[in-house]
Amino acid sequence: MRALEERIQRDGRVLGGDILQVGGFINQQIDTSFTLELAREVFSLFSDLPVTKVLTIEASGIAFGFAVSLQFGVPLVFAKKSRTSNVDGAVLFAPIHSFTHGNDYNATVSAEYIKPEDNVLIVDDFLANGEALRGLIKIVNDAGASVVGAAVEIEKGFQGGGDRLRSEGIRVESLAIIESMSESGITFRR
Amino acid sequence: MRALEERIQRDGRVLGGDILQVGGFINQQIDTSFTLELAREVFSLFSDLPVTKVLTIEASGIAFGFAVSLQFGVPLVFAKKSRTSNVDGAVLFAPIHSFTHGNDYNATVSAEYIKPEDNVLIVDDFLANGEALRGLIKIVNDAGASVVGAAVEIEKGFQGGGDRLRSEGIRVESLAIIESMSESGITFRR
Repeated sequence: MRALEERIQRDGRVLGGDILQVGGFINQQIDTSFTLELAREVFSLFSDLPVTKVLTIEASGIAFGFAVSLQFGVPLVFAKKSRTSNVDGAVLFAPIHSFTHGNDYNATVSAEYIKPEDNVLIVDDFLANGEALRGLIKIVNDAGASVVGAAVEIEKGFQGGGDRLRSEGIRVESLAIIESMSESGITFRR
Repeated sequence: MRALEERIQRDGRVLGGDILQVGGFINQQIDTSFTLELAREVFSLFSDLPVTKVLTIEASGIAFGFAVSLQFGVPLVFAKKSRTSNVDGAVLFAPIHSFTHGNDYNATVSAEYIKPEDNVLIVDDFLANGEALRGLIKIVNDAGASVVGAAVEIEKGFQGGGDRLRSEGIRVESLAIIESMSESGITFRR
């Protein structure tokens, strides 16, 4: 999506070779109108499918997830990164390794929020190695529900996670795919 | 706000005396259209003030914060609960004690996202002891910016945090204030 690529070029900063800092508009300070524009694009990509739930993971997926849910008129569910006192009852979970933070955690969702009849669109702000999406897919599968696909704001194409998921038959739509990046520039996949 | 009180009565569950479970529409599974309705009410309450930023804290404040930001047409900034590798540069922070989770953490915001000229509306999903709001107020003050007020979806009035902030001159608007609750029922402040 051209508008997102231009915004990344203008406001993104590459730190230490593999971190793309987009805190000014995506994940710390959020440009909510622009996020809604991105969500409209996701809606047009998946509007042929009977989405009943949008699923993301805390924290930085929630803003985009909210915007996408609004477009589809369906609830947003977000996975938590650890089991807390206000999750009661049966819990769906998936172990996830974070390359960014160098740690492991469980993504958890109360089983009452994803039912076998649900068609779930998974969304996140970033896709790098694909570990988070893979965890969310496991959660949907464990619930007996269907994964409609995944929509991501920015994919780091060079880390391969998106292409591995696509080769397994998952529909992954990323609004911008970075082919390569360094402190001297960012190149997008055409 | 009557619509929120009715929704809490219908879909909320009181667990173990002092936890209000509203995971079905506020914080786990989010009714995004309803959240937008709540945000419109916040806009009408604060529309006389020159809000330039909305500030919340991850994770469960982000959805409501997003909706409120959209109404005001200003950016949403969210504080993180620990310093992570993608916060660079100068950081504003406040130590916060969570009574819900029985732990302490730092709320952090990159200093580039709150400037002295900002008029900040602080929002959160819940207000109980007021520790989180107090931390966010400290962050705004440390940035040299102004706190316009605070808007909250649900205040647990019986825990006193909201009234303590009000007595200090902070404008706190809660869309529903619970006066008392138990497994047999919920009473709202009139």
